[in-house]
Amino acid sequence: MALIVHKYGGTSMGSTERIRNVAKRVAKWHRAGHQMVVVPSAMSGETNRLLGLAKELSPATHSTALARELDLIAATGEQVSVGLLAIALQAEGIDAVSYAGWQVPIATDSAFTKARIQSIDDVRVRADLEAGRVVIITGFQGIDPEGNVTTLGRGGSDTSAVAVAAAMKAAECLIYTDVDGVYTTDPRIVPEARRLSTISFEEMLEMASLGSKVLQIRSVEFAGKYRVPLRVLSSFTDWDIDINEEARSGTLITFEEDEKMEQAVVSGIAFNRDEAKVSVMGVPDKPGIAFQILGPVADANIDVDVIIQNVSHDGRTDFSFTVHRNDYARAMDLLKNTVAPACGASSVVGDPKICKVSIVGIGMRSHVGVASRMFRSLSEEGINIQMISTSEIKTSVVIDEKYMELAVRALHKAFDLDQPAEA
Amino acid sequence: MALIVHKYGGTSMGSTERIRNVAKRVAKWHRAGHQMVVVPSAMSGETNRLLGLAKELSPATHSTALARELDLIAATGEQVSVGLLAIALQAEGIDAVSYAGWQVPIATDSAFTKARIQSIDDVRVRADLEAGRVVIITGFQGIDPEGNVTTLGRGGSDTSAVAVAAAMKAAECLIYTDVDGVYTTDPRIVPEARRLSTISFEEMLEMASLGSKVLQIRSVEFAGKYRVPLRVLSSFTDWDIDINEEARSGTLITFEEDEKMEQAVVSGIAFNRDEAKVSVMGVPDKPGIAFQILGPVADANIDVDVIIQNVSHDGRTDFSFTVHRNDYARAMDLLKNTVAPACGASSVVGDPKICKVSIVGIGMRSHVGVASRMFRSLSEEGINIQMISTSEIKTSVVIDEKYMELAVRALHKAFDLDQPAEA
Repeated sequence: MALIVHKYGGTSMGSTERIRNVAKRVAKWHRAGHQMVVVPSAMSGETNRLLGLAKELSPATHSTALARELDLIAATGEQVSVGLLAIALQAEGIDAVSYAGWQVPIATDSAFTKARIQSIDDVRVRADLEAGRVVIITGFQGIDPEGNVTTLGRGGSDTSAVAVAAAMKAAECLIYTDVDGVYTTDPRIVPEARRLSTISFEEMLEMASLGSKVLQIRSVEFAGKYRVPLRVLSSFTDWDIDINEEARSGTLITFEEDEKMEQAVVSGIAFNRDEAKVSVMGVPDKPGIAFQILGPVADANIDVDVIIQNVSHDGRTDFSFTVHRNDYARAMDLLKNTVAPACGASSVVGDPKICKVSIVGIGMRSHVGVASRMFRSLSEEGINIQMISTSEIKTSVVIDEKYMELAVRALHKAFDLDQPAEA
Repeated sequence: MALIVHKYGGTSMGSTERIRNVAKRVAKWHRAGHQMVVVPSAMSGETNRLLGLAKELSPATHSTALARELDLIAATGEQVSVGLLAIALQAEGIDAVSYAGWQVPIATDSAFTKARIQSIDDVRVRADLEAGRVVIITGFQGIDPEGNVTTLGRGGSDTSAVAVAAAMKAAECLIYTDVDGVYTTDPRIVPEARRLSTISFEEMLEMASLGSKVLQIRSVEFAGKYRVPLRVLSSFTDWDIDINEEARSGTLITFEEDEKMEQAVVSGIAFNRDEAKVSVMGVPDKPGIAFQILGPVADANIDVDVIIQNVSHDGRTDFSFTVHRNDYARAMDLLKNTVAPACGASSVVGDPKICKVSIVGIGMRSHVGVASRMFRSLSEEGINIQMISTSEIKTSVVIDEKYMELAVRALHKAFDLDQPAEA
């Protein structure tokens, strides 16, 4: 018997029929002797419907007063979900009780629409568990020190579930979703993509931030910080499959490096085509130049991802970085009209039609030649590399976006990701 | 400058366009210098939608655990309304803040789905008003001593508004609804029916309980207990009509009898066709007989309205009462098979096709001959009276339901209700 947290996404909660299936699955776990805490999202489409109503009434300004009201409105979606799930469990003959975030309470700061969880009081929940009840808690929300309802931002229910699991020292947090785990890459691009039975926390962070949108990245950070064993699995299996089989399905996100020692060097191929590349050419190579260029960019609220500064020639260097494609025009404008003249650059060039492809793997740390194998594979396909960026567990290249699928497929094959890891 | 409470029903809040109109109306009152507290209902249809989802998931049992969840779910309808109205007011340039019942807090008992308000803490609301904000509070709900969300039952938003007005000693509580006031009788039956500019609290209670469904009866009781000046008026006038004209429109429910002294004896004609008549005939006339008959009826959860016991003949009497028509079959069954044999009655007869018509008026107390005028009017129309019941401010008759419209029209004319009261 263990304390287990289940999290169900909006699609899994999308109709009363699906909620009934979630209840049957939770009831199965409860009957197997586990203490169950469940964190469901709002029924799919509900949060958009609610915020759509608000948008009809509000001009395009963003005030704290408005954000406070948006949170009070949006939080109702999950409040309905938890009540419905409790009723469905009661209909299964299971004693169940639901709480809104403020009732637990889940304490957050006052950053409306993007609040951060500060603490979770588990006294009430634990008393219910001891009394044999299934406890259902709203995802996505909490209460600030002034008693206002706050929300954690889109996808916040993952974070809520992990935070609850951390606060209650749960044995495992199971994130039920519409995919059956984390894959070596997107199966829509590489049909041979394989589900990973485990992935390290650091790899998952890289995979998530690079576009594998299985889990909200904040929830992975949270799980890493508090070492919450996290499993991503499908809510579309039959609810009555064998519980031991279910408990081993999906992908487990781990914190023990040992487990990975003998496994593949590269765990997956991530990619992202939401970026654009900008280069400031012929910049005088002197201290402070990076800040001179990136300071105004940051001031304009433009997020920067890959940053490359080449070695200099004749006291001048080229400085390149990538930004979100939506910020491309603004970034180019700023660099051409303000930054380049100020720092004496010779020119500014850019390209919005690029993509970033990364190999991710904790094994890279202890294996040489991984990057060169990547470059050779791309070279064999005739793909020109425009930028390279490396870290402990990933190597990213920026290439022409038209080669993205080709690059992902080539790398997936080059690192034997289509072969079972245990082979 | 005064503290004013506005209450808007679900129809008035039925779309973002209508919410915008509510905001403009409230803004007008705020700009005229009033401190404004607004209590809106859920958008029309929303409470039914939410409870419909719950019903799909739940079998037909009624447990406290289920009721608790139903309240958590149903309360979200008003929570969305208050947030949207706050946003609409902000869009009008008015500083506005909204609160769910638990945030005020509005303290209730733990009778889920039919909770009673116990106290309202006005500290937070008053601070907002002093800071120049419009405060919007969810109707229909509160929080119990254990921190659970409770609802007050259908129509509870009227009660919430009156309770807030009482707690804050508001100058007036304005109930905006889809009718423009209280009428002398239903205009669908008597086209000459007139809107009353004032009605006494006691008369309003009788009119409400007898089927004039303008206000929830609990809210009227609450207003009477705390002497909250209450006005029923239309939310379908243009929002920008002159505020002084608006402040005098609708019907004011008063507590000062003096005002009524010079006015009409009878204020209105109420009617109800939801009842059925049952009679226990030839009952031995001895002490305890009423309890012997009505005790089992009450035990069966059957509500009784009019009760008549005729004088006895030869030591035997006839005992008649009315029940809700939905309870008629159960009541007849109980009386025939259990009660009548036990108390030695000669027979049980009943009639579901009756109606009750009442004249209501505080003036009746000091005017003789009102009842006889009523009976004469009905007699002139050839309407047979089956039962008569009188109280201080009303006289009710039970008649064949087919004569209901005729009786209402005749009485409306007999008491000159189609003539302006000040004529």
